[in-house]
Order: sequence, then C-alpha cells, then structure tokens
Amino acid sequence: MADDVYWDPEHLEEVVSQRARILGPAVWAAATPDPRPVISFAGGLPDIPSLPGEILARAARWVVENDEKEALEYNGTFGPRPLRQALAERSTGIEGIPVALENVMIVSGSAHGIGIVCETLLDPGDIVLCESPNFPGSMRTMRTFGAELVSVPMDGHGLRVDALEVELKKLADSGRRAKFIYTIPNHQNPAGITLPLDRRQRIVELAQEYRTLILEDDAYGELWFKQAPPPSLYSLSGGDHVIKVSSFSKILATGLRMGWTMASPAITSRMASVRYDMGSSAFLGRAIAQAIRSGDLDRHVPHLREIYGRKLGRMEAALREHCGTHCTWTTPDGGFFLWLLLDPGLPAGDVQRVANKKGVIVGGGPQFFADGRATNHLRLAFSYVATEDIEEGVNRLAEAIEEVAAAPAAK
Amino acid sequence: MADDVYWDPEHLEEVVSQRARILGPAVWAAATPDPRPVISFAGGLPDIPSLPGEILARAARWVVENDEKEALEYNGTFGPRPLRQALAERSTGIEGIPVALENVMIVSGSAHGIGIVCETLLDPGDIVLCESPNFPGSMRTMRTFGAELVSVPMDGHGLRVDALEVELKKLADSGRRAKFIYTIPNHQNPAGITLPLDRRQRIVELAQEYRTLILEDDAYGELWFKQAPPPSLYSLSGGDHVIKVSSFSKILATGLRMGWTMASPAITSRMASVRYDMGSSAFLGRAIAQAIRSGDLDRHVPHLREIYGRKLGRMEAALREHCGTHCTWTTPDGGFFLWLLLDPGLPAGDVQRVANKKGVIVGGGPQFFADGRATNHLRLAFSYVATEDIEEGVNRLAEAIEEVAAAPAAK
Repeated sequence: MADDVYWDPEHLEEVVSQRARILGPAVWAAATPDPRPVISFAGGLPDIPSLPGEILARAARWVVENDEKEALEYNGTFGPRPLRQALAERSTGIEGIPVALENVMIVSGSAHGIGIVCETLLDPGDIVLCESPNFPGSMRTMRTFGAELVSVPMDGHGLRVDALEVELKKLADSGRRAKFIYTIPNHQNPAGITLPLDRRQRIVELAQEYRTLILEDDAYGELWFKQAPPPSLYSLSGGDHVIKVSSFSKILATGLRMGWTMASPAITSRMASVRYDMGSSAFLGRAIAQAIRSGDLDRHVPHLREIYGRKLGRMEAALREHCGTHCTWTTPDGGFFLWLLLDPGLPAGDVQRVANKKGVIVGGGPQFFADGRATNHLRLAFSYVATEDIEEGVNRLAEAIEEVAAAPAAK
Repeated sequence: MADDVYWDPEHLEEVVSQRARILGPAVWAAATPDPRPVISFAGGLPDIPSLPGEILARAARWVVENDEKEALEYNGTFGPRPLRQALAERSTGIEGIPVALENVMIVSGSAHGIGIVCETLLDPGDIVLCESPNFPGSMRTMRTFGAELVSVPMDGHGLRVDALEVELKKLADSGRRAKFIYTIPNHQNPAGITLPLDRRQRIVELAQEYRTLILEDDAYGELWFKQAPPPSLYSLSGGDHVIKVSSFSKILATGLRMGWTMASPAITSRMASVRYDMGSSAFLGRAIAQAIRSGDLDRHVPHLREIYGRKLGRMEAALREHCGTHCTWTTPDGGFFLWLLLDPGLPAGDVQRVANKKGVIVGGGPQFFADGRATNHLRLAFSYVATEDIEEGVNRLAEAIEEVAAAPAAK
C-alpha cells in the first residue's frame, strides 16, 4: 500500500495542479559559506538603518487607541477605506490626474498585486509583451499562469517603442493581441533606466491603437535622487487602460507585505473579485493610513532618497576607481540598481562566479530576460549593503574581473 | 474607437481570465436601511469588546525594539521562522503528535490557506468531496478553480461516513478519485456540530483506502466551551495525508489576516511554491510569535471560550423562551454558530426575509450547500452581537416566526 498512496512525496506530482507542476517544490535558501563576511549587491532589499520601526510601532499604537474595532475586523477585498482614501489623495498629487477611492485596491505587496493582475487577465496561451530585461519574480508568475512571454528589448533609454510596435503589429496581423504590456518605467529593475516622456506617450498610444492593457510596475518610482520621473503611464492614459502596481516595500518595509493598485473601477472590481484572501491586513492598512495622515511617510521618503543617492555615489566612485577600464554603465536616476555592462571577453557568468567566491554577491543571468538570452550585464544593488562596505565590495568585484580577464582563453 | 477598446467596462468580459469570468465583478456591501438599529446574527465575526488591541500593540512594540531588521525584511514564502517554530511547539501540545517547523507554513488567514490548497491541487474538472452544509467562501474558491463539488451530507453528528464511502466507491468504480475531502470537524460552520472520534478515524481510513487527501478547516477548534474536541484528522493521520488550515482570525482578530497550515513537508513545499505574494507579513508574524511566547495568546483564548460560551447560553435561553415551540437545535460544543431547524410549514427563506425587515439579520439558504439544495435551517451567529442585544434579537426573530406561521398558506 505504501508505494501506492499518492500523497507520498514521490507520487505527489500526479495530483498537484498544472501551475504547481510548472513551479515544482519551494526550496530553502542555502547558506553561502565564505571566510570573509559576504557583501551582498544581490537582492533588491532596503537599507537597514533607515527601517521605519518607530513609525510603524507608533502607528500601530495609534490604531489600537483610535480605530481598534475597524482595524481588527474584516475590511473587504478592496482594502481598508482610510488607506484607499489616503492613497487616492496622495496619488492625485503625484499623478497629476484625479485618483478616486474606486481606482485604488490594497494588496499584500506589489508581487501580490501583479499576481492578482495575472489571475484576473491570464488564461493559458495568452500573450504578454514583456520589456526585457525585467524582474524575474513577475515573469515567473506570468509564466505559471500559462502566459507566453514575448520579449521586447530595451536600449539605453528604456523600452524600445519601435520594437514594441513591430511585435504589436505582428500579433495583430496574425489575428491575436497581447493581454497586456509589462513594463517598469521608473528606475527599472534590473536596468536602472527611467523611460523618457516621449516613449511613455508612444506606449500609451500604441496600447490604445492595438487594444491592449498596460501593467505598470512602479516599486521604485518615489525613490528618485535629483528629479522626479516623468508622469506615469497611468497618468498619461487618464487612468483608463493602465493598471499601475505600487508598493510600500521600498518606501517603508518589505516585511509589511503591503502595496496598492490603481486602475479603472471596472478592472479594480474584477481584481477584487478573484481574491480568495478576504483582503489584505486591515490592521497594517490602517496603521499605514495613519503614517500617511501624520506626515511620517512624506517625511521618511526624502530621507530615503538622500540615503540611496549617497550609496549610489559611493558605488560609482569605487567602480570608476577600481573597475573603470573593464565596464560601463548608465547612472540611474533613482531606485536600487546599477546595471553594469562588462567589456567583451569578460563573460558575466564567469565574473559572477569568481566574485561569489571572493565574498561579493551580484545579480545577473538569463532569469532577467524574457527570452532567456542574457546580455553581458551584472546587476549591482546599492540599496542593502552598508555604506562603509560598498568600496570593499567593489574591490572584490574588481579582483574577480581582473582574474577573469587574466584567465587564458575565456570562452 | 471608443466602442472598440476592450478595456471599456462593457468589453472587459472578453479579456478577463476564466476564473474572473466565473466570479464576475466584486460589489460594494449595500447599507441595510432599518428604523431600529439592526442586530446581526449573520456574520462569523468575533466579539468586539474582547479584541486584543493591547496585546497586538505591545507585541508590535516588542518586535520593533528586539527584532526590527528581521520583522521588516522578506521572510520567505514559508513564513517567519519564529512564528513557525512557536506554532510547531504549541501544536505539538495540542495535536498530541510531533509537529515540526517543516510542517508549518504561515498564510494570510485561513481563507488564503484554503485558496493556496486549491492553487496547489486543483485543475478544472477535478473533484472535491464536500461536507454539506459548509462555509460558502471556501466552496466558492474551489468552484472558481474549476472543481466539481460533490456533496456529502451531514447528520446530527457531523459528516456521514457511510455517505462518504458511497461517493468514494462510486468515483473509484468509474476510475476517478477526489483530489480531497473538505471538512470542518470542530464546531462546524454553519451546523455547529463537532465530529466524534470514531467518525474521524473512519474518514482518515477511507481517505487512505481511496487514496485521497483531506482538507481539514479548523478556524474554530480552540474555541470550545466545556471540553476540547477529539483529536484532529491531522493528528489521527500522523500528519500524513491531511492538510489542516488554522487561523488567528477567531482567536486574535480577523483584521490581521494571519493563519497557518500544517501538512507533510512535501505538500508544504508545493504550497509555498505556488504563492506569488512573497510570503505573509513578517511584521505581523513576528508580533504574533511574541504574543505566543509571552503567554498572551494562551491567556486570551480561555477568556474567549468563556465569552462565547456565555453568549451561547443567553441565545439558547432566549430561544427556549420565545421560539421553542417552532424550532429545534443541537447545542454546539464551541465556535460561533447555532444551526436552527424550523418546523415544517415555516420556510427558512420567508422567516429570514421577515426577520430582516424586523431588524435582525440571520444566515441561511442554498449558498451553504454544496449541491444548492437547502434544508430548512437558519444560521445564528452568537459571536458578534453584544450580549445585551441577544434577547432582543431573538425576540425579533420570534416575531418573524409568528408572522410567517400566521400567514395564510405559507407555500
């Protein structure tokens, strides 16, 4: 009998869903053994000393004293009304178009919001036009809903609108259309690029012309260093055919798992309906609403801009000093990432592996690309590393680059 | 062009996913106009005065002072380790079998956990054997994943194991098997029944024999009044082929959106993998872990048992006094619900409508039944209503019953 029961780990494959089969089991993160303490330029994680614990503990206390009943009961799948209202008002200022309560839904982080967009729009075989490189987590989610990802390349100014038009036309000519275009227009992950206004306008026009929606992922938009990015695609579309997903992860904390979506009321109500979680936490939602109303959030964000701008400055100075002869990059206007292009003859995968051995972790590889064909880039996150460790981390990377450059016949 | 764009609300139906089409748009809850303040016996909501705001604010403060970095960063899809560890230890005591870290995953409420089970196991056309009546929210989620729900009736002692065996055999004879059996063995929603030990043992045996999993929904298990329920199906199976889903909603607060699953490590890792939300809130998870470690939770639960037991006593006394000649019920051993059987000639739907007009809301109807064929029951939640309003609520219900009984030729 024992060999026959299908809940046995070996037989589980027979009973899990199609999505679960695509995904396989989850694995525990393995520890990285290294004699020197590891310096991480890998994850898109926030700066530790600036984590707003005090703001959150104070807001939680306020909620318990002033809003206890509502904060501890169900608040519905659209989310707590005070947070939706606070975001509608705040977003009206940021977006430059009226944003109403009906446009806003609270989600459990932007990854959750993107998953809900997929649940709402994607059936197996549907097409998503995906700016490439891009955030691997989102592409993974889209693929597990059975979507076919069509890669649209970027250049030094972001998504190539000419290539987007070619793909849209190709689809239209074969009688198909994309369910949506997926893009990160601000301080892109991983490429660090901010899309200029004219391209934004053109993408919105093309989406209208070819009758497709846009999924605008904006986890990093508020974290600009010198000037705010151009208006969002959501704003340029008048809030009509763009779903914008935003997050408190980078402006407050990833450990909250809180974010929001903005879309037309019709789309928002479909997204609220596919949720089976009875909504995101009312307790956290109302605490964040209080952090907005009290002004804490709007005092915190400029502080973060200053920190990340300073970290980027340190990283660029170290790169110029130690790696400048072997690579190039475009200075990002904000966000967490610097996208380093290695010179020919220095394969990114080799540099990444050697760097890892030397105690610095960097991102890179085909998982960032919708078509799996990686360019010769490495992603350096300057956000998480302690400021005083940045130069040492770049030093180790420089050692790795020199070692790969000196190796005979790097293939 | 305007009529042609498919993101127009009227054309949205063309592009949403199969699941979204099944669900339709979400709607706002309408206000109930009534001259008298409404008394609600409808929702499975916790008692307001006992909401543990102070426990939560204190735990949030503790986390910020002692565990800030970990509480505000990603903690992975399995959930924060300290909460999994605290639950493993606490559950080992409750379940009477060893529960390890690897058996536990943190979810955003038990509705979320049940949704994850569906995402992990169900493809369109799969069969779920569903104890009936049952919680409409779970049945709705299962249906939207394309599952066919096969109703297995209950009697006064819970799920009828003879009927379960008939359905399992019928499926096996036609070469099929159910993906899982869905049951709420403790203080069932809506029927209030606690399944006796011998039936629990038989269900576990039948699931083994017919090679199906069991989804054990246990939102109310800890809220017993006089004695703890028999061992869980999870415990009786040795943790092998049962997925048990539990929640902090009823023992702390629904507004947290926090719960947990217990299952074999193999199944747990598949469930962690289908998540696209990057895990539940580390901040809330670590605060709850602190509420467990500090003893706050274990001091709070007996207090809740006392409150809900007292509310049930009040409701039963009022029912005996005002409605006793028109209905019967079985006293629940715990939980939130009393399942009232109306005498023949008193259609539950008519009583519900008249009661609603008189300012008392009660549950009932076909949405509680997997096959949509309602019995003549009403669900009375005694959990949420203020203690001092219980008698008035039952009075109004009694008025409604008398009115329906007096109506000529109730059909």
